[in-house]
Amino acid sequence: MALVVEKTSTGREYKVKDMSQADFGRLEIELAEVEMPGLMSCRTEFGPSQPFKGARITGSLHMTIQTAVLIETLTALGAEVRWCSCNIFSTQDHAAAVIARDSAAVFAWKGETLQEYWWCTERSLDWGPDGGPDLIVDDGGDVTLLIHEGVKAEEEYEKTGKFPDPTSTDNPEFQIVLTIIKDGLKENPKKYTAMKNRIVGVSEETTTGVKRLYQMEQTGTLLFPAINVNDSVTKSKFDNLYGCRHSLPDGLMRATDVMIAGKVAVVCGYGDVGKGCAMSLKQAGARVIVTEIDPICALQALMEGLQVLTLEDAIAEADIFVTTTGNKDIIMVSDMRKMKNNAIVCNIGHFDNEIDMNGLETYPGVKRITIKPQTDRWVFPDTKSGIIVLAEGRLMNLGCATGHPSFVMSCSFTNQVIAQLELWNEKTSGKYEKKVYVLPKHLDEKVALLHLGKLGARLTKLSKDQADYISVSVDGPYKPAHYRY
Amino acid sequence: MALVVEKTSTGREYKVKDMSQADFGRLEIELAEVEMPGLMSCRTEFGPSQPFKGARITGSLHMTIQTAVLIETLTALGAEVRWCSCNIFSTQDHAAAVIARDSAAVFAWKGETLQEYWWCTERSLDWGPDGGPDLIVDDGGDVTLLIHEGVKAEEEYEKTGKFPDPTSTDNPEFQIVLTIIKDGLKENPKKYTAMKNRIVGVSEETTTGVKRLYQMEQTGTLLFPAINVNDSVTKSKFDNLYGCRHSLPDGLMRATDVMIAGKVAVVCGYGDVGKGCAMSLKQAGARVIVTEIDPICALQALMEGLQVLTLEDAIAEADIFVTTTGNKDIIMVSDMRKMKNNAIVCNIGHFDNEIDMNGLETYPGVKRITIKPQTDRWVFPDTKSGIIVLAEGRLMNLGCATGHPSFVMSCSFTNQVIAQLELWNEKTSGKYEKKVYVLPKHLDEKVALLHLGKLGARLTKLSKDQADYISVSVDGPYKPAHYRY
Amino acid sequence: MALVVEKTSTGREYKVKDMSQADFGRLEIELAEVEMPGLMSCRTEFGPSQPFKGARITGSLHMTIQTAVLIETLTALGAEVRWCSCNIFSTQDHAAAVIARDSAAVFAWKGETLQEYWWCTERSLDWGPDGGPDLIVDDGGDVTLLIHEGVKAEEEYEKTGKFPDPTSTDNPEFQIVLTIIKDGLKENPKKYTAMKNRIVGVSEETTTGVKRLYQMEQTGTLLFPAINVNDSVTKSKFDNLYGCRHSLPDGLMRATDVMIAGKVAVVCGYGDVGKGCAMSLKQAGARVIVTEIDPICALQALMEGLQVLTLEDAIAEADIFVTTTGNKDIIMVSDMRKMKNNAIVCNIGHFDNEIDMNGLETYPGVKRITIKPQTDRWVFPDTKSGIIVLAEGRLMNLGCATGHPSFVMSCSFTNQVIAQLELWNEKTSGKYEKKVYVLPKHLDEKVALLHLGKLGARLTKLSKDQADYISVSVDGPYKPAHYRY
Amino acid sequence: MALVVEKTSTGREYKVKDMSQADFGRLEIELAEVEMPGLMSCRTEFGPSQPFKGARITGSLHMTIQTAVLIETLTALGAEVRWCSCNIFSTQDHAAAVIARDSAAVFAWKGETLQEYWWCTERSLDWGPDGGPDLIVDDGGDVTLLIHEGVKAEEEYEKTGKFPDPTSTDNPEFQIVLTIIKDGLKENPKKYTAMKNRIVGVSEETTTGVKRLYQMEQTGTLLFPAINVNDSVTKSKFDNLYGCRHSLPDGLMRATDVMIAGKVAVVCGYGDVGKGCAMSLKQAGARVIVTEIDPICALQALMEGLQVLTLEDAIAEADIFVTTTGNKDIIMVSDMRKMKNNAIVCNIGHFDNEIDMNGLETYPGVKRITIKPQTDRWVFPDTKSGIIVLAEGRLMNLGCATGHPSFVMSCSFTNQVIAQLELWNEKTSGKYEKKVYVLPKHLDEKVALLHLGKLGARLTKLSKDQADYISVSVDGPYKPAHYRY
Repeated sequence: MALVVEKTSTGREYKVKDMSQADFGRLEIELAEVEMPGLMSCRTEFGPSQPFKGARITGSLHMTIQTAVLIETLTALGAEVRWCSCNIFSTQDHAAAVIARDSAAVFAWKGETLQEYWWCTERSLDWGPDGGPDLIVDDGGDVTLLIHEGVKAEEEYEKTGKFPDPTSTDNPEFQIVLTIIKDGLKENPKKYTAMKNRIVGVSEETTTGVKRLYQMEQTGTLLFPAINVNDSVTKSKFDNLYGCRHSLPDGLMRATDVMIAGKVAVVCGYGDVGKGCAMSLKQAGARVIVTEIDPICALQALMEGLQVLTLEDAIAEADIFVTTTGNKDIIMVSDMRKMKNNAIVCNIGHFDNEIDMNGLETYPGVKRITIKPQTDRWVFPDTKSGIIVLAEGRLMNLGCATGHPSFVMSCSFTNQVIAQLELWNEKTSGKYEKKVYVLPKHLDEKVALLHLGKLGARLTKLSKDQADYISVSVDGPYKPAHYRY
Repeated sequence: MALVVEKTSTGREYKVKDMSQADFGRLEIELAEVEMPGLMSCRTEFGPSQPFKGARITGSLHMTIQTAVLIETLTALGAEVRWCSCNIFSTQDHAAAVIARDSAAVFAWKGETLQEYWWCTERSLDWGPDGGPDLIVDDGGDVTLLIHEGVKAEEEYEKTGKFPDPTSTDNPEFQIVLTIIKDGLKENPKKYTAMKNRIVGVSEETTTGVKRLYQMEQTGTLLFPAINVNDSVTKSKFDNLYGCRHSLPDGLMRATDVMIAGKVAVVCGYGDVGKGCAMSLKQAGARVIVTEIDPICALQALMEGLQVLTLEDAIAEADIFVTTTGNKDIIMVSDMRKMKNNAIVCNIGHFDNEIDMNGLETYPGVKRITIKPQTDRWVFPDTKSGIIVLAEGRLMNLGCATGHPSFVMSCSFTNQVIAQLELWNEKTSGKYEKKVYVLPKHLDEKVALLHLGKLGARLTKLSKDQADYISVSVDGPYKPAHYRY
Repeated sequence: MALVVEKTSTGREYKVKDMSQADFGRLEIELAEVEMPGLMSCRTEFGPSQPFKGARITGSLHMTIQTAVLIETLTALGAEVRWCSCNIFSTQDHAAAVIARDSAAVFAWKGETLQEYWWCTERSLDWGPDGGPDLIVDDGGDVTLLIHEGVKAEEEYEKTGKFPDPTSTDNPEFQIVLTIIKDGLKENPKKYTAMKNRIVGVSEETTTGVKRLYQMEQTGTLLFPAINVNDSVTKSKFDNLYGCRHSLPDGLMRATDVMIAGKVAVVCGYGDVGKGCAMSLKQAGARVIVTEIDPICALQALMEGLQVLTLEDAIAEADIFVTTTGNKDIIMVSDMRKMKNNAIVCNIGHFDNEIDMNGLETYPGVKRITIKPQTDRWVFPDTKSGIIVLAEGRLMNLGCATGHPSFVMSCSFTNQVIAQLELWNEKTSGKYEKKVYVLPKHLDEKVALLHLGKLGARLTKLSKDQADYISVSVDGPYKPAHYRY
Repeated sequence: MALVVEKTSTGREYKVKDMSQADFGRLEIELAEVEMPGLMSCRTEFGPSQPFKGARITGSLHMTIQTAVLIETLTALGAEVRWCSCNIFSTQDHAAAVIARDSAAVFAWKGETLQEYWWCTERSLDWGPDGGPDLIVDDGGDVTLLIHEGVKAEEEYEKTGKFPDPTSTDNPEFQIVLTIIKDGLKENPKKYTAMKNRIVGVSEETTTGVKRLYQMEQTGTLLFPAINVNDSVTKSKFDNLYGCRHSLPDGLMRATDVMIAGKVAVVCGYGDVGKGCAMSLKQAGARVIVTEIDPICALQALMEGLQVLTLEDAIAEADIFVTTTGNKDIIMVSDMRKMKNNAIVCNIGHFDNEIDMNGLETYPGVKRITIKPQTDRWVFPDTKSGIIVLAEGRLMNLGCATGHPSFVMSCSFTNQVIAQLELWNEKTSGKYEKKVYVLPKHLDEKVALLHLGKLGARLTKLSKDQADYISVSVDGPYKPAHYRY
């Protein structure tokens, strides 16, 4: 695609695949709204007072129908929004189209190259000559990374006059990041510094991004306050767990139509995501084997009747492999060579380095046969045996299906809205330092509460006497901070 | 589509949507072959002796990738094949394309009109001037119906000179059938009679078609032998049950992306299909309510923790409705009007008369909004409340997804191949009269056996002593005929 | 125990463990009655007309609380009853006591020797000088066996003057049977022949007994009509499946208190009983391995995510072994020696020859440590490793727990009552020949119907139009005979 | 029972039900040891160095077989131990007997009166004239309570000369506590103060006791350091969850033999205990309704397909009620009156005030029929309808069955041993203040690790590179403190 920003008739910038899909996007948004009671309640509760009036929000988060409802909730509360996706395959083009047409500046399409991906990310931060966003919604932390790396380079440049050197790294993606920063530096040596000065804070969606934030907090390099949305209970114990329970089989079915029943499936990692994946595979009739490094999670798997083995133990017997670790180098090309013919290999962790795609792509004589987009059969020259890799090792539920369903994303995204509101409302109070925060429990409980009615639930009320007996308030929060749910 | 038969360069007739999808179809067939060990074993075992040499087979069965592997198994055994789909939405166009190009005469595409559907059915029977097929593979019994109605009309015509009268019925589909027969009669007053005389027998795939066959057997109107493949254990207890457990959520997810967890789902009917549907919905986290007429099936549902209510009891509370009864008039438009906004209504039974589509379509002022093909929102004028109907009330797993996965279809279709072989091998022996037969148990067990290796199973062998103790042969069959599995 | 028949104050004969438990038995019967709606409905429907007036019924069926409710249903309908248990460990002594005190002649206690067992069986047939019972309720067929063997011996004796020779068999239990017959023959050479002449028929409860009956039918040696209650759907698909799902873990827990979660369990046989066992173990968090001879059942296990291996494959890895096959020689002492220390070995099939108890008991140097009644640790001298055997290899759910719960037994026993009524009502009509019959489907459906209300179910009614469409009556039966549920 | 301390031949004090059960206890301990790898590993690792040499440990924790293995682990590490149960029904008399005979001073039997209960508790603290224990193992906090109340009374007495007044409270149990303290005070006005001065710390087992500790920490009244064992992941996410999943149905079955399948069950509270209970009931085929005050837990229940209602909504429809809240006044007598006949009411939370036993016992005209110990039917005079209450409203899994199985208790109790070691080793270091602590994560992970081998698990090892990537050590701990598992 030619990387040229387009404009709507009203002058809003965008770059999407196909603007004609906007009507289809609107129909799906309307369906999704019925399934996202948390976000719709935010519109009702906060819309009238326009709390985000004057706020510029940059978001980097899978540009799906569900995200579209999030974006339109932010704009309904008064925000101005620019958006990109945080994954090259996760955009739903009809969602991008309708948002671009109706609500916010969007730069995203399904199947970006890495070059395009970072171009889009840059655009989402391009709020014109007078600097950047007030708030960031991040997923995986790429926007936060770009700004932090940008500031670092500008400081280095100010001190030493040296530009960042893309050839200093082997990582091809990081080379692109450095090139972008270098080019920006030439234009404006205070570009990211100015941006940083304006930013009120970031709310981060996922485990991987949160890990980065805590590392920066520990090393004292975090440049602005951050709210860890991932660790809201109504996020990590719902989206990660129940979202994946839904979207893993969805992705497998759409990509391969394979019967899950009777198969042997290996789930690498038994955190919340791994638990959701293992549960859905087991329930669909697979025999599930878990690999784990953490003895506690391993013991949990055993209690559910799952076998815990090493990848090596199971490599020759399994039909389906799913990585969920958030770590790297989980399934290497040397492992893939030992797999059964047509074994399915996929990843549902945030980054694409769980599966050794580089090793596979550069394996001498390997042949790639694209069955359909995001479904490739790779044939090894010596064995003539092939494996099927989904979404090129990236998030298979977003690459091969449509990601998590609306209802569970409503939980996650209501946390996002509340986090953004909290950062914005407290922007001058000094409440939030350059640290990582989780939302207070009463807000977490509120998010849950907003989702009960849709499912017909009726909550019991504590009496004053009972509340006193367990030393809580009648209206909550009901649990101590360390409670694990 | 213009209803004109096309021809390949080798002269084979066909009518499909898009011949350019043939290569994609071939890739998917290659994947499916690995998942269909029963059919591939038939090729190995019987291929060399070409048992179907000289046999013409007409098939009317969902033209999917799995069916493509069935067709190519029949041709690998020497048969000549003509094929149509048995459902207007169930064809996978890439499957149709590759079979048309490489293996058999195909007349099928996704989204036929009823007119087109019956034209395709007629083409599948059109073996040229000298009559029809030797064998029929039927699913739902439409080919069998056409021949029986044709013969009836020809007999009536011979006796009375009267043509069949399409206006004699209110059923629009049956009007088409009568018109076809009438037109055929004018051309050749012995067309279907000649066909019938040639036909060795039919093997029928599904409950609905089998029911028709038994009715004809009882009334003495069955014109040729029939093998009831549906009631092979390796069909009805696998395809119907485990196939639907897989493909119901697949269809729901592809059509609506709705979160199943937390929802209330009503499954109408708790036969094998209903059991599979209820199981998958429960496991995905829905609360499932079953409706049943049969107290035994109702008690089975209760033992699984499912609530058994009438449709009326649950109508206002449920989010998802699935019909699986094989009966008619299960969900009427008056029911749909009482449903929650955006309740999902779908059918996974063979015919489309479980849901009152006619009542819905003709409801005064009702508005149909097509979200995407096979996913329609219907809005009632008075309540402004909408419901979402999948696949226009037809088989939602085939209309909205890709039907059952290869492995379970391999069980069903291996029964088909064995049934066809049995009919053909015994064509002159008089073994089969004009009755309905099920395959003998040792063949049923053989079908299962062919599928164990792929899943890594290791079977225990009876000792002679043990076999004597339970009065069976060491090599089976292992169960009495009435055993229910 | 001294084998002396005792008498109640009203002159009723009995032999039980402890008459003082009768009050406790009555309390538990009262609880059970609430859970057995089918039997209680029979009392309401048939009690007033006293259909069993004049009928003598001999029953040989586990003398539990549930059976007590069955017996009192038979007496409420006018029958005179004598009863024994069909298993040496299955009697609940309080149930035996209350029935002996209040309702029928009972000869049964928990922990009979084999000698005592057959003495009890004889007593249940001892209706005084003028012959035997009119009707038999049998479970496993021991009463039926005794009469058939008795008649055979009497015929042989009449022909040849030879007495049966207990030393002609190696089987210690069969030696006892022959001795009993021999002793009887000396007293009255027409004892069993007279009995046979009086008997109207038998209704048989379980798979094993049914198998014997069909063998006798085939060889033409069956002496009176038999109704196969086991194969009523409301028996085999409920009692066998859901009963065992309940009572297997119950027995394991009471006998060993072992944690099932995390363990590897081997279930030998995947029929209805095996399915129930495997389901409960899986749900309790065990990893379940199935052994099977029948490829169809094996494929069913695989579809549920269970591994199918041979016993040999799993012997060294498993923690729990359960036999459910109805066959013999399933787990031999040579297998037991290879098991892990404290592996649990138990049987839930009718007879005790699934586990090689004889081989174990006679293993040189083996040491038996009784933890508590029905829970023994057997230590092998060479390995010092022990295994835990439940209920001496007999029905562990009855030996170590209380068998199936009332509700599911109400289904089974309502079939028994109906079968007994059917035999008795048709005793002179010639409807039943010396063959094995199953109850007609409408009675099977009636049994289910009687159990729905208790569980709050509401059944849907077919319209006449719908009933016609699927060719059934509005009131059922709703399924063809071959339907598998 | 006459409350007189007895002595073994070696002079060890005890009071148990039946010393002749000691051999049976030993056999069951030997079985349990094989299932408790964590405790046995502690013996191997720490036994040789006798770390508890010189330490006096008082324990108040259900005197079961599993606890016996804990006690003998403490003595194997050099401790001297006195023990009582923390629940009047939870003692297994054979476990008490064998420990009294072989290992420690025990004061416990099944079915204590409240008076007896507190006498036993006092005895467990009675280390002779020179004061009390060094360490406390507490479950529910009754020993801790007694000491704190004792010290409070002694301080008051010192200041004012006033004795505590048992008539100052309506709570009959607290009256007993005050009487004991008063009597002690008369004997020795520094009894509890001396005890407190000696005590190094307490490790507390359960949610309820932990709650009390945190309250005392907050009000500054905690008299010695406390380790919260309950909130070790390997305790609360295993014992509470998987323990109850096992022992709830065990208790239901032993107490009532009722069929769980098909029933409607209400679980009050959906914390870890409630989750385990709901899971087991659902898997056994019940339809489960959850009541909750916490919207997050309620949403979790919904995601598992459970209905969330108020008790009032479900009261007339349910067959089984289980309280798991840790709160009071959950099911009142007014609720019980509305229940179905023979509805089962039980509690699995620590204290017996979840069910309004007092209201039931004092209901005018109510009739109690004891079916067997711990299983009572209560009949209301007006309706003649009865409900079945288990274990008099106390912990039903301990009252009606044998509590949690050995394996899961091994996890909990290994935490106890480690906590006791930690307190003892650091007794002079000042590491622990008068606060509540949880064990560090690496010890939690170690507990899990010790239990993997028994279940055949094989753990994956992180590479250094991977560990760096996720910023953990290769040897753990692997998760941040806030991780929820």
